[in-house]
Amino acid sequence: MQYKRRRKIVFDFTETENQKLMIKSVKEFCDRYLTSEKIREMDDKGHPYPRDIAEGLCSLGIVMGTVPMEHGGSGIDWMTQGMIAEVIGYYDPTIATAAGFMAVETGWGFTIDRYCSKTVREKYIKPAINGEKFVGIATTEPGGGSDVAGFKSTAKKEGDEWVINGEKTFISGTEECQKWGGGYWINVRTGPTLPEAPHRNMTSFFLPIDADGVEVQEPYRDAGRMAISTGGFTMKDVRLPEEYRLGEVNKGFYYTMEGFDNARLLIAFSCVGVIQRVIDEATPYIKERKVFGRPLAKYEAIQFELAEIYLEMEALRLMAQKTAWMQDIRYQEEGMPAKTSEARTFKPTEVAKWISLIKWKGPSLALDAARKAMLWFGAAGYTKDYLLEAAWRGVMSYVVGAEGGLNIQKIVVARELLGKEFIPYK
Amino acid sequence: MQYKRRRKIVFDFTETENQKLMIKSVKEFCDRYLTSEKIREMDDKGHPYPRDIAEGLCSLGIVMGTVPMEHGGSGIDWMTQGMIAEVIGYYDPTIATAAGFMAVETGWGFTIDRYCSKTVREKYIKPAINGEKFVGIATTEPGGGSDVAGFKSTAKKEGDEWVINGEKTFISGTEECQKWGGGYWINVRTGPTLPEAPHRNMTSFFLPIDADGVEVQEPYRDAGRMAISTGGFTMKDVRLPEEYRLGEVNKGFYYTMEGFDNARLLIAFSCVGVIQRVIDEATPYIKERKVFGRPLAKYEAIQFELAEIYLEMEALRLMAQKTAWMQDIRYQEEGMPAKTSEARTFKPTEVAKWISLIKWKGPSLALDAARKAMLWFGAAGYTKDYLLEAAWRGVMSYVVGAEGGLNIQKIVVARELLGKEFIPYK
Amino acid sequence: MQYKRRRKIVFDFTETENQKLMIKSVKEFCDRYLTSEKIREMDDKGHPYPRDIAEGLCSLGIVMGTVPMEHGGSGIDWMTQGMIAEVIGYYDPTIATAAGFMAVETGWGFTIDRYCSKTVREKYIKPAINGEKFVGIATTEPGGGSDVAGFKSTAKKEGDEWVINGEKTFISGTEECQKWGGGYWINVRTGPTLPEAPHRNMTSFFLPIDADGVEVQEPYRDAGRMAISTGGFTMKDVRLPEEYRLGEVNKGFYYTMEGFDNARLLIAFSCVGVIQRVIDEATPYIKERKVFGRPLAKYEAIQFELAEIYLEMEALRLMAQKTAWMQDIRYQEEGMPAKTSEARTFKPTEVAKWISLIKWKGPSLALDAARKAMLWFGAAGYTKDYLLEAAWRGVMSYVVGAEGGLNIQKIVVARELLGKEFIPYK
Amino acid sequence: MQYKRRRKIVFDFTETENQKLMIKSVKEFCDRYLTSEKIREMDDKGHPYPRDIAEGLCSLGIVMGTVPMEHGGSGIDWMTQGMIAEVIGYYDPTIATAAGFMAVETGWGFTIDRYCSKTVREKYIKPAINGEKFVGIATTEPGGGSDVAGFKSTAKKEGDEWVINGEKTFISGTEECQKWGGGYWINVRTGPTLPEAPHRNMTSFFLPIDADGVEVQEPYRDAGRMAISTGGFTMKDVRLPEEYRLGEVNKGFYYTMEGFDNARLLIAFSCVGVIQRVIDEATPYIKERKVFGRPLAKYEAIQFELAEIYLEMEALRLMAQKTAWMQDIRYQEEGMPAKTSEARTFKPTEVAKWISLIKWKGPSLALDAARKAMLWFGAAGYTKDYLLEAAWRGVMSYVVGAEGGLNIQKIVVARELLGKEFIPYK
Repeated sequence: MQYKRRRKIVFDFTETENQKLMIKSVKEFCDRYLTSEKIREMDDKGHPYPRDIAEGLCSLGIVMGTVPMEHGGSGIDWMTQGMIAEVIGYYDPTIATAAGFMAVETGWGFTIDRYCSKTVREKYIKPAINGEKFVGIATTEPGGGSDVAGFKSTAKKEGDEWVINGEKTFISGTEECQKWGGGYWINVRTGPTLPEAPHRNMTSFFLPIDADGVEVQEPYRDAGRMAISTGGFTMKDVRLPEEYRLGEVNKGFYYTMEGFDNARLLIAFSCVGVIQRVIDEATPYIKERKVFGRPLAKYEAIQFELAEIYLEMEALRLMAQKTAWMQDIRYQEEGMPAKTSEARTFKPTEVAKWISLIKWKGPSLALDAARKAMLWFGAAGYTKDYLLEAAWRGVMSYVVGAEGGLNIQKIVVARELLGKEFIPYK
Repeated sequence: MQYKRRRKIVFDFTETENQKLMIKSVKEFCDRYLTSEKIREMDDKGHPYPRDIAEGLCSLGIVMGTVPMEHGGSGIDWMTQGMIAEVIGYYDPTIATAAGFMAVETGWGFTIDRYCSKTVREKYIKPAINGEKFVGIATTEPGGGSDVAGFKSTAKKEGDEWVINGEKTFISGTEECQKWGGGYWINVRTGPTLPEAPHRNMTSFFLPIDADGVEVQEPYRDAGRMAISTGGFTMKDVRLPEEYRLGEVNKGFYYTMEGFDNARLLIAFSCVGVIQRVIDEATPYIKERKVFGRPLAKYEAIQFELAEIYLEMEALRLMAQKTAWMQDIRYQEEGMPAKTSEARTFKPTEVAKWISLIKWKGPSLALDAARKAMLWFGAAGYTKDYLLEAAWRGVMSYVVGAEGGLNIQKIVVARELLGKEFIPYK
Repeated sequence: MQYKRRRKIVFDFTETENQKLMIKSVKEFCDRYLTSEKIREMDDKGHPYPRDIAEGLCSLGIVMGTVPMEHGGSGIDWMTQGMIAEVIGYYDPTIATAAGFMAVETGWGFTIDRYCSKTVREKYIKPAINGEKFVGIATTEPGGGSDVAGFKSTAKKEGDEWVINGEKTFISGTEECQKWGGGYWINVRTGPTLPEAPHRNMTSFFLPIDADGVEVQEPYRDAGRMAISTGGFTMKDVRLPEEYRLGEVNKGFYYTMEGFDNARLLIAFSCVGVIQRVIDEATPYIKERKVFGRPLAKYEAIQFELAEIYLEMEALRLMAQKTAWMQDIRYQEEGMPAKTSEARTFKPTEVAKWISLIKWKGPSLALDAARKAMLWFGAAGYTKDYLLEAAWRGVMSYVVGAEGGLNIQKIVVARELLGKEFIPYK
Repeated sequence: MQYKRRRKIVFDFTETENQKLMIKSVKEFCDRYLTSEKIREMDDKGHPYPRDIAEGLCSLGIVMGTVPMEHGGSGIDWMTQGMIAEVIGYYDPTIATAAGFMAVETGWGFTIDRYCSKTVREKYIKPAINGEKFVGIATTEPGGGSDVAGFKSTAKKEGDEWVINGEKTFISGTEECQKWGGGYWINVRTGPTLPEAPHRNMTSFFLPIDADGVEVQEPYRDAGRMAISTGGFTMKDVRLPEEYRLGEVNKGFYYTMEGFDNARLLIAFSCVGVIQRVIDEATPYIKERKVFGRPLAKYEAIQFELAEIYLEMEALRLMAQKTAWMQDIRYQEEGMPAKTSEARTFKPTEVAKWISLIKWKGPSLALDAARKAMLWFGAAGYTKDYLLEAAWRGVMSYVVGAEGGLNIQKIVVARELLGKEFIPYK
């Protein structure tokens, strides 16, 4: 008896030819330039990120690959960009490369491009796509990263210019940005803080790092992802012309949320890569290394841990793929003039929920995988002879807080499940 | 600037119209006949399963729905059948209905139909599809369920007949089968047990429950999923003609593995339904119930537990859907004469790995969800005033052992990741 | 070289002769009367609790054993009573016996005795010690168990009597109390509910179950610990003379907290017993039962689970013992006229914190142990052929809510670590 | 009514005056010399360990404090030494100080002293107690740390001397030992490896680091506990006179196990200190730091995590204290000529089981506590502005492998619970 399928295949997890080709080229580059030895060297030396590698990545068209072709990007979709971010996480499991060039430059660079003037695009975005400059995000303030109500930086209109004062901190890539040129998305108050709606009255700008009045501080000394810097800067009477404004006045909060979505999506994909790398490093090791006369791979405690890591990695990968697919539909529909918000396939908050799900699961899982694998390697797993410890230290940054800490993701999800009125923030 | 998609959408999680229609009809039936009160009553009364409900389900064409139309089934694919199993798990979170009519009758009934003679199909499968009989699986022996090497039941050819002796235990639906008529897939030795290949020399048969020499024992008294019986029987010189043999001689082990795959797939989908039900029961409760002047939904410990259950449910659902899609391709390709095993999209062991991933994650997660939600309900959650405790007791059966215990699933996954030589069984 | 100890041994975990003797007599009784078969029978039949067993336990002097000798008790300390509670949990792992006669009768009976008049003591406490009556606690109201502010039952003084109205629910032993005679500690409002101090203006009384105006409802149908009933009652114009008041007017909340402490302490000890029982049942089973040719005890996943259960059981046991020792010092010092609250070795809140630690850890751990062991037993572990499933269902009652749910214990601990001002309740 | 205690207090967790005094002096030293700034500096600079701090610790009499007074030690018991190790873990949560001077020098130095000749004691132990030299343990070989059967180093008797060849690796303090002088306990084969009893035919020696033929390798680059070095050395025809032998010929394995017990005990105490430090650092921070207008300490997710860390810390502390008490009795009884092995209060394997329980729980718990607290601090928790990240990296060394990895501890416990025949090693 023959089994016949009576409908079109609606689930298709196969990659397109295009995706396959791009991923192949990224892998070839990484095989050559992002070797284990290079990653170790980068982690040991610390920032700034090696400029030649950065330029090489850019030359592949994968940094800010989702930027439309007519703006200098590759015009790829988020699914493809996500798959590339996975590869990047695989080759640099310290997550420094993914942090600097996927989450920050691609996630935020794309978002800047959506809202910036032609001037900013020509002067910053296009050069950044080519690896000549660095663009990023500077939203966190000393009072905290997720608590918008606490933000104190301000912009005031004086004549044709905006005068900006304040301080931003925990910004990825400050050293790279200083050395290569470039600038940051900032979000500042352009009106009073409303206790009941603290997210209103914020406006986004593009701040060139070399603008007068910007003083960049010494980078932080971090526990991991050493190859990319994290720092802060103060802004004292920085004057920006109107064309450095991003989007409309007082809508900065919403744009910023969009930028977070894009960055978080890519970091979740990168975590899939990290976990796959951990599995690929550990599997031959445990098959070979013998203890008490048996290979480690015969010990059930290790087998089952490996199997569980694999299980959850596949879960994460699928969720990331579904989210990218939703994100692609969202952006496609936003470009369609006739579609109203109501008619959309997915509400933006639904997409944001999925993004928080994967930003929550991804880094936590990668941290867990690296920690467990270190144990399989025994004392050697604790040394810098392997990349496991660097992966372990690196992914922790995304558990702790980068692009929004763990509990913030949980709160976003809870908000969607329960309603705003049950959540601590406005 | 417009965001353009430059390729066909390769991921499409949308349901087809056909799927939507079938699911709608199942929901309408359940809304009417599988109410919470009815489920409570069924759990309290225990087996046998109410015959009218069983017949109603069958009349929808969803029991053994994947059986081809020309054999009396609905010819639906596994994806659709899986989605239906999810609905069934939702309405009967004690899992009794899903156990009896999705995992057992559908998963195994389909497999019997693949390998049975016309006689068996006419006498048992078609009536079972219509709800007039019950068919199931009787593979476990007193020595264990997963350890094939320990199986002792035998079949010996005498003239035109096979003479079968042995004992089977922990069989779902023995009481229903006795009352309604029907029979079981059995797997018995038709040659010596080879220490290095204990799975060889086993052959599958269809055993009518009322065959001479079959003695059915009192059902077990279980901790949960009370509405469907679990029991055992002995076979003493049971004589079966050739046409009761399933498939080829000495290939029974492989067919049995296929049957397990089908049953496990559906039970994983049903667990998605159970978890969704737990969420849907709990959400309004915690939003309304106040403690210390605040609704429970405002307590972060509860919020985050709910969000985590939701996260993992979505992960499970996606994994189940991907697995069903793989299963559909597998069966489709098996029906194609030209395709060699090597050319297949998915190796059978790859599909089996995915099925074990979801059979592992599904019941464990559903158990966890029910347990946590019981706590949110406080003392009331421990009583039979709600279905939570029945769900908690019920899904435990699939964690403990039904269709293969938790550790067996882990071993299957580890086998694929590491290789057979690292695994305890042959 | 000889190793010399240069100081007295300050840690001594050895049991006294007295403790050993009492425990020996309890074990002998249980070996004879609380056999596995009897426990299974009790769980199957459900409440009321078998009266002969109850009387037998009482005849050993261990029910309310901490009540002073001059009041009819055995005058034992909490350490000894705790060790006895552990034995009881071991022999009846469904926790029904421990719930009824350790937590409820001993924990609360002792507390009633501390605050009751001679009349109540003679009419209720002494008979209860002898097994002739049943005394317990009825504090929960339909609005919740831990949220005192929501309590609505009231007592108003009319002449020499208090007139009581209201409703109590989720009370252990209502059916036993009705059949054997006895009554309950209740806690009711004797003044307005102060929003900022809802625990004030509550007074405790002893309510005979057969008082006019008390109407007992049908017991709940619970998921486990079937041998002891749980029910509720309404109080309509129940008139109680002054001598049924417990302690001072408007101090009921504080006495109630004391009663909870005593009950929780004993239930934690009982959970140690349950876990030890699970280990003792499972160990020979896994050493004998073979899968794939090897005893289960050779599988690392099972070994390590067993080892972890053992580890945490020993942790719990030590914590329970330390807590009992603190409790003993607390009560001893309370009896010393000269000691002021400040001079005490342990603040009452410090003892309460430790009690919450073990009430938190104990039931959760016992639930976990039973669940895991069920899996080792495979499908058999899900049946009523073993007590594991009854233990699993039973201890869940103390995770969910009996004597205060899990989250309440966490809040109590957090209050001590952080300060009242960070906690949701007043 | 007065509550009377009718028996001596058998549980007494009070510290003796002596313990209090010693701990006070250690705290005073640490307050002055092991400040947070100093620890940060030490972690940044890396090894060798600052010699003045090492000498200061030694001057307090707490390094090898359990060595008898007549051998130059302080003759304190393990309970006191354990409490001191807790303080050391508190002040240096990177665990470098505890690793170097509690686990290694005290745990192993004490054991060397038990078995060494007068010559070794005078030349190495006494100077090490005074901080003039460094003694440690070098048991691991490239083939692994726990798998004795794989050990390949040998000693052969030639005339009056032993000629030693082989390699040792993952040795704590190689750089310190080279700079300050000193040597290591080594364990080498003095007979053939028996497949069924690989632990036989091993003998322990004291190897001066500057012996001819010892070549010390570059230290490893570790993920944490930077202030103390970890390295390896090869031994090529190293000649040692008889008086450098430790204990009897071919009994080295058993002595080594004893040394591990002593070291593990102290590291578990140090982990209590690390956790207490994490709590003490985090508590004021979360009370002060506000997010969304509320202090972090008001968020239940953080409250409950803190409470759980506290719960498990207290469990660990009690278990460590009980173990030290057992260890004290064991050593006391070993010094009593008349006591046979059978008459002992605790079998050595029972003590070893408890030591494995706490070596298992301690580092895992400390790692978990540090990781969670880092999240509460947000992005700042990931930087070197706080010690949390250094604690997190540091304690990982004891989870991964130092003094025996996690799974080895589980195997030791399982061996005691199930019997040797179920365990992979001989």
